[in-house]
Amino acid sequence: MNSIMSSFTALTRFIPGIKWARAYSTEYAILDAIAGVTVGLTVLPQALAYATLAGLQPQYGLYSAFVGCIVYAFFGGCSDLTIGPTALLALMTGRHTNLGGESGPHLAILLCFLSGVVELIMAFLKLGALVDLISLPVSVGFTSATAVIIASSQLKGLLGIRSNSGTDFISTVVSVFGNLQNSRLGDATLGISSVIILLQLRKLKDMKAPDDATKSRKMIHTTLWLIATARNALMVLLASVLAFYFELKGSSPFILTGTVRSGIPDIKLPPFQTTILNPTNGTIVEMNFGGMLGELGSSIILVPIIAVLGNVAISKAFGGSGINATQELMALSMANILGSFVSSIPVTGSFSRSAVNHASGVKTPYGGLYTSALVLLALGVLTPYFRYIPKAALSAVIISAVIFMIEYEVVKPLWRCNKRELLPGAVTFIVSLIVGVEIGLLGGVLTDIAFVVQRTARPGLSINQMQTISNIQYILVRPKHSLLYFPAVEWVRNGISNAVKEHGRLPVVLDCRNLNEFDFTVVRGLEALHNELGSMKVPLILLGTQDAVKNILIGATNANIPDVSSEHELDELLQEFSSDVKELKEVLTPLFKCNN
Amino acid sequence: MNSIMSSFTALTRFIPGIKWARAYSTEYAILDAIAGVTVGLTVLPQALAYATLAGLQPQYGLYSAFVGCIVYAFFGGCSDLTIGPTALLALMTGRHTNLGGESGPHLAILLCFLSGVVELIMAFLKLGALVDLISLPVSVGFTSATAVIIASSQLKGLLGIRSNSGTDFISTVVSVFGNLQNSRLGDATLGISSVIILLQLRKLKDMKAPDDATKSRKMIHTTLWLIATARNALMVLLASVLAFYFELKGSSPFILTGTVRSGIPDIKLPPFQTTILNPTNGTIVEMNFGGMLGELGSSIILVPIIAVLGNVAISKAFGGSGINATQELMALSMANILGSFVSSIPVTGSFSRSAVNHASGVKTPYGGLYTSALVLLALGVLTPYFRYIPKAALSAVIISAVIFMIEYEVVKPLWRCNKRELLPGAVTFIVSLIVGVEIGLLGGVLTDIAFVVQRTARPGLSINQMQTISNIQYILVRPKHSLLYFPAVEWVRNGISNAVKEHGRLPVVLDCRNLNEFDFTVVRGLEALHNELGSMKVPLILLGTQDAVKNILIGATNANIPDVSSEHELDELLQEFSSDVKELKEVLTPLFKCNN
Repeated sequence: MNSIMSSFTALTRFIPGIKWARAYSTEYAILDAIAGVTVGLTVLPQALAYATLAGLQPQYGLYSAFVGCIVYAFFGGCSDLTIGPTALLALMTGRHTNLGGESGPHLAILLCFLSGVVELIMAFLKLGALVDLISLPVSVGFTSATAVIIASSQLKGLLGIRSNSGTDFISTVVSVFGNLQNSRLGDATLGISSVIILLQLRKLKDMKAPDDATKSRKMIHTTLWLIATARNALMVLLASVLAFYFELKGSSPFILTGTVRSGIPDIKLPPFQTTILNPTNGTIVEMNFGGMLGELGSSIILVPIIAVLGNVAISKAFGGSGINATQELMALSMANILGSFVSSIPVTGSFSRSAVNHASGVKTPYGGLYTSALVLLALGVLTPYFRYIPKAALSAVIISAVIFMIEYEVVKPLWRCNKRELLPGAVTFIVSLIVGVEIGLLGGVLTDIAFVVQRTARPGLSINQMQTISNIQYILVRPKHSLLYFPAVEWVRNGISNAVKEHGRLPVVLDCRNLNEFDFTVVRGLEALHNELGSMKVPLILLGTQDAVKNILIGATNANIPDVSSEHELDELLQEFSSDVKELKEVLTPLFKCNN
Repeated sequence: MNSIMSSFTALTRFIPGIKWARAYSTEYAILDAIAGVTVGLTVLPQALAYATLAGLQPQYGLYSAFVGCIVYAFFGGCSDLTIGPTALLALMTGRHTNLGGESGPHLAILLCFLSGVVELIMAFLKLGALVDLISLPVSVGFTSATAVIIASSQLKGLLGIRSNSGTDFISTVVSVFGNLQNSRLGDATLGISSVIILLQLRKLKDMKAPDDATKSRKMIHTTLWLIATARNALMVLLASVLAFYFELKGSSPFILTGTVRSGIPDIKLPPFQTTILNPTNGTIVEMNFGGMLGELGSSIILVPIIAVLGNVAISKAFGGSGINATQELMALSMANILGSFVSSIPVTGSFSRSAVNHASGVKTPYGGLYTSALVLLALGVLTPYFRYIPKAALSAVIISAVIFMIEYEVVKPLWRCNKRELLPGAVTFIVSLIVGVEIGLLGGVLTDIAFVVQRTARPGLSINQMQTISNIQYILVRPKHSLLYFPAVEWVRNGISNAVKEHGRLPVVLDCRNLNEFDFTVVRGLEALHNELGSMKVPLILLGTQDAVKNILIGATNANIPDVSSEHELDELLQEFSSDVKELKEVLTPLFKCNN
């Protein structure tokens, strides 16, 4: 028994999800099944829609929707989190799927594989901490811009406009408004009313039955909640039935999804070569691995970073800080690597579906297994019916999901308490819309870092004229920061020089009691200041340096900047100095008299 | 009289150098003249050599050598500083002078003008502070790499090798060693012996006459110092006489400088268009202003930054912190803008010549007027003789000047006290050599900034279990930094969560007494932590928040995180909490009993 236990423990180290199996009761299984199926009803229409958003055939969304849940059940640590295709990653993938030939799905699947590899590297190098560089305002700016871009990209589908246009935000919007007269009545009616209905249904979810409600009243509430949660699936079902009915009657008011390939995908290596359409003469040409890497470019780094960011945010939100970041990163990496073997596009945690999972009362990550089962069932059985799904309905599903990613409500508290922090958020939002999401994110992070560097470079200095117990006047300079690094050195030097100019040539005492760290540049700067003040017969004294600072002071300079550990010692030292100065004055005064 | 005085004061505001004129005595004039002429003797051979380094005809060095000194006399604030061509700026200019046609000097002069404009913009935007981002190790790495690159670029001239090669360090070294068999005996002999003699002469400068030396002994020492200081001029003179002698005898053992255009340059606008050689068919083609801007590229920003960096370093070294950085930047800007009207290449303060100026006993920036006069005299009278200067002698002048810019002596104290800081220096040095100086500098600065961000992201936390006066246990968490920004939020959250795991579910007190600043992300992180701990019935309390922090806490969240200002208040609050918890326990215990 003991050896079974210990081998079980060893196994948990590699596959942490095994631990849930130990205490897995029937009750848990039922609760997980309810939640898993509910999530499944959400992911089905989303997967079809996100595949279209990525510029791929709908089945690729389904291929992406089942592996993540299985992998996470065994490797993940947060019961609520559900991995699969997301609007943002689909949008980022969609930038590489318009080269024609077989390159669309091939590049998307390769990107999924490479994202997993990069995430694995990040896990080993503990680079998951890079997401710490993304502040809340930047994150909000980025998500909001993405939501605007995604929503605008769906306007054509919503209105039934058939036209090619650029993939960036501005040309999309221009193209939509330029083609408004080409919108189709059927699609536009279906699309707009779907959005309105979905937004109304979403509100049902927040209706709570009062605690003293009757049983039947509670039943009604539960039903309403279920409708609200499965609203996307219901909406799509309704629209498809409508489309089917019209097809039977021989009319086609909606643009339909078209054939969705049936069956479970083959298990095979991700593609390392592909074919593209040569735009000049319309022939199909080979593209090798190098060419594919070149086409994917910065997405190979950016997609994993965005995926990790999303995943971390969700697991923190639902799992608290009991979550092991490295383990989560490993789970995400596995979901992408293994996913690429069944033709998945890049996946990550979905905030909206995780919220559904949580609200549905999931108990363990095994809930994902039921979601996967539903998706696989759909692939096997339902695909023939998916061809009747109107594209406008899928666009409505996407739009009504992403508009809640626009987080304008954070602007007000920011404006109230720290207007400066609006800048990185605004930079991210505007640059993301105009130039592109990755440049926007980078711009926001750099704006934030510039601020951190600026704060390091300009520490507050409190400067006061003081006197010791034996009434010797001195200037006390106290940096308000606990770190003093190279960008601050000239600032501190100037501050002290100005203090000497203002207060007269009194001894200068630099209060180091709160200083934890110095660097070489600062020490050399202090040495120069010590020499400069020394030439004016102004002593520079350090008060209460800590050991770490003391070591670097001794190592870096030959100047013996005097260093006292207490105010009492300071008094003694200043007494010594003042008698020296007095003696010096007595020696110098006759000389001065001779000269003048 | 008063109105004259006040108009004088008004004038000093625009032309600060006027102030020296008020108390300008004959004694000052003599001392300035001696120093000015000594600097002039140093700048003459350097100017010729640096023009060659920049890939231009020698007279352009002389054109660059006189304007800076005149401008600085009126606009500068540091008596010792002398502005003119430098090896580093010449090297950076030389990257744009190999396009043939008239483009060499035209691009160099335009770069000088644009550098002045960028410096002017930097002065107005107070961007001079950007040089604060360059730490001592990065600055040392950059200067050392530049010195190595410049020295290696002069090896061909020194050895009389005639061959074209790439402009970067590696291809230059490869080309020199590949062409060693093509070196000319005459040039190599002259070059190598010149370097040896120059290095020996340099040592003379450091010989000090003892204070009790006889008058004749002191005279000898002064003569030796003068020889050491004017060693470049003397060496070039000697080598030229030698070359002239050989020419008279009909032999040409040295490659000579060739004709130097005589006369003072015309005053004209910097060129805004030029001609280049079309490399494919050898014809001369026009290049417009846009093309010139494209060719100069990042140099338009980088040359001014390097110029400002050098200038600030020198004015700090010689002028202490009494120097007004903006005024210095204005003076540098004027020197470049006005210089470009007389065909100057980019100029900045020269450390070596400023040291000569200082050592020669200069009293005011007017010393530069005498230097300018000497250069103008040379342009008018001496140019016919400059054609006999052997190129090997000029290479020797450059090499023996720049090898002292290789500052290996900073490595030892860095290794001793702070090995981490070797990294930015090493990155700068190696990347500068392999890729290029601007990428090297950028790499070094980014390495340093990454460290600053890393320190901001990972503040030390001191975590202790404490008890109040009424013996209530709590966990005291004290961040060792005084700033808490977004990159640290997850780190602090995890630290506190782990502390709760380790010490048990005791109240957590975050000691904010040393915290000066928070940002929005941190506040929202604290809110999330507060909620998370709250769900475990662990109170989170802030101790001694300052007003700035308090304001942002109130503005950013709705969670009322309790906040106490003293340990006494803390005790009271904890007493309240513990009685709450007791009550809660009394309520909950029967419930638990029912359930189990």
